Amino acid sequence: MNLLLLEAGEVDAGGGVTVSGARARHLLDVLRVDPGQTVRVGILNGPIGTAHVVACNRPGGSVMLTCVLADAPPRPAVDLLLAVPRPKVLRRLWAQIAALGVGRVLLTNAARVERNYFDTHVLDPATYEPLLVEGLQQARDTHLPEVSVHRQFKVLVEDHLDALAGGALRLVAEPGATTRVADALPTGSAPRVLLAVGPEGGWNDFELNLLGRHRFTAVDMGPRTLRSDTACIALLTLVHDALRARPSGTPSQA
Amino acid sequence: MNLLLLEAGEVDAGGGVTVSGARARHLLDVLRVDPGQTVRVGILNGPIGTAHVVACNRPGGSVMLTCVLADAPPRPAVDLLLAVPRPKVLRRLWAQIAALGVGRVLLTNAARVERNYFDTHVLDPATYEPLLVEGLQQARDTHLPEVSVHRQFKVLVEDHLDALAGGALRLVAEPGATTRVADALPTGSAPRVLLAVGPEGGWNDFELNLLGRHRFTAVDMGPRTLRSDTACIALLTLVHDALRARPSGTPSQA
Repeated sequence: MNLLLLEAGEVDAGGGVTVSGARARHLLDVLRVDPGQTVRVGILNGPIGTAHVVACNRPGGSVMLTCVLADAPPRPAVDLLLAVPRPKVLRRLWAQIAALGVGRVLLTNAARVERNYFDTHVLDPATYEPLLVEGLQQARDTHLPEVSVHRQFKVLVEDHLDALAGGALRLVAEPGATTRVADALPTGSAPRVLLAVGPEGGWNDFELNLLGRHRFTAVDMGPRTLRSDTACIALLTLVHDALRARPSGTPSQA
Repeated sequence: MNLLLLEAGEVDAGGGVTVSGARARHLLDVLRVDPGQTVRVGILNGPIGTAHVVACNRPGGSVMLTCVLADAPPRPAVDLLLAVPRPKVLRRLWAQIAALGVGRVLLTNAARVERNYFDTHVLDPATYEPLLVEGLQQARDTHLPEVSVHRQFKVLVEDHLDALAGGALRLVAEPGATTRVADALPTGSAPRVLLAVGPEGGWNDFELNLLGRHRFTAVDMGPRTLRSDTACIALLTLVHDALRARPSGTPSQA
């Protein structure tokens, strides 16, 4: 944990907060904090700053802190349209998606997504939010990715995508595509990017055509076929790297 | 499984082979092959090709195939110097390393590697070889990464690295570095790359200095602190992408 994430309502007007439970145990047992020390803190979907440890109640398992907060980090400039992976894979992926930096996650059905992937608690906010928070605390971000689940791919792409990710540059990773991610981004000011990552067996032709008709540019996945979680991490990495390499480093806040 | 991997000794002079066990079950139950169909096959550390299904013994759980083999895929042009991660993380990482493509994995001690990470069966070939093979079968490669374990970081870097990865361009991922991976590669013919990825808490100053004195160039990890497995996948992705983007796409076979 490289950042202690708090909810806005936990912190009083003077910046004071007392944490207990898993976060206190991490502070006490892993980071071994003592009064007088400081830790990095952030407010979920808010600013980031420093907290001074005021008191440690080791037997009780609580820590009193006073926070001094500054600016919020920039919202990640990448959104992810992801065909629902196997539950075991998705469980592993949540924290890594949040750590790599994603503004919005659109989970979608696809022809090669098994129907029972939707009947799983890995799609339940009670399961995935703690995993997303774990990833944010790893990467020192406060922006909880907004997650939505879409059972009808065609309806999502045709009717909802413009509202959810209208201004973003749209990329779809496709075996056999020849455009590198870095070459798919226009020069000039850095856009938001919406990255579509298909199911384990790939998008089918209907889905690829639909994405193509809705302004998705096909980008190269490299010559090797990767497991969907590895592919997702690899592609998010390439998009973030390409955005960072641009002359204007400031992503638009769509 | 996108490629059925066989050992050279399993295949007779006419290309015939009978597989049983897990590979046969995968062919019969997941790929649901029948006589007359073809599957992609490869010989471990050898050529890749096509196998015709001659006979399926479903009750017995075996499949007879005849292989027609062509060329070997190129050896991955990236080697990895990796500080031993937590056993749970390393277990997850083996297949992904092989899938992304690594010629050689040098696992090393470092100040921030816990001593007990070495006393684990995740460093035992009997554990990791099947996971590496799983990654190769996913990515359709036949080159089993060569793995070595080094308990003394200084001895490895000073005395063994030139023999193990002499001609490679050496990169070390370091927070705060400003050179992108893509910009660290010289123009012209594509070199092999040796990528050093540190432990969860990072290399210490002594280690970074030692790497610097042994021709490692520090490269940017991006502004976000990633878990070591995510970082490893992200960095391997950036190195492979940078190598693919070069004018000469043929890596040297060191």
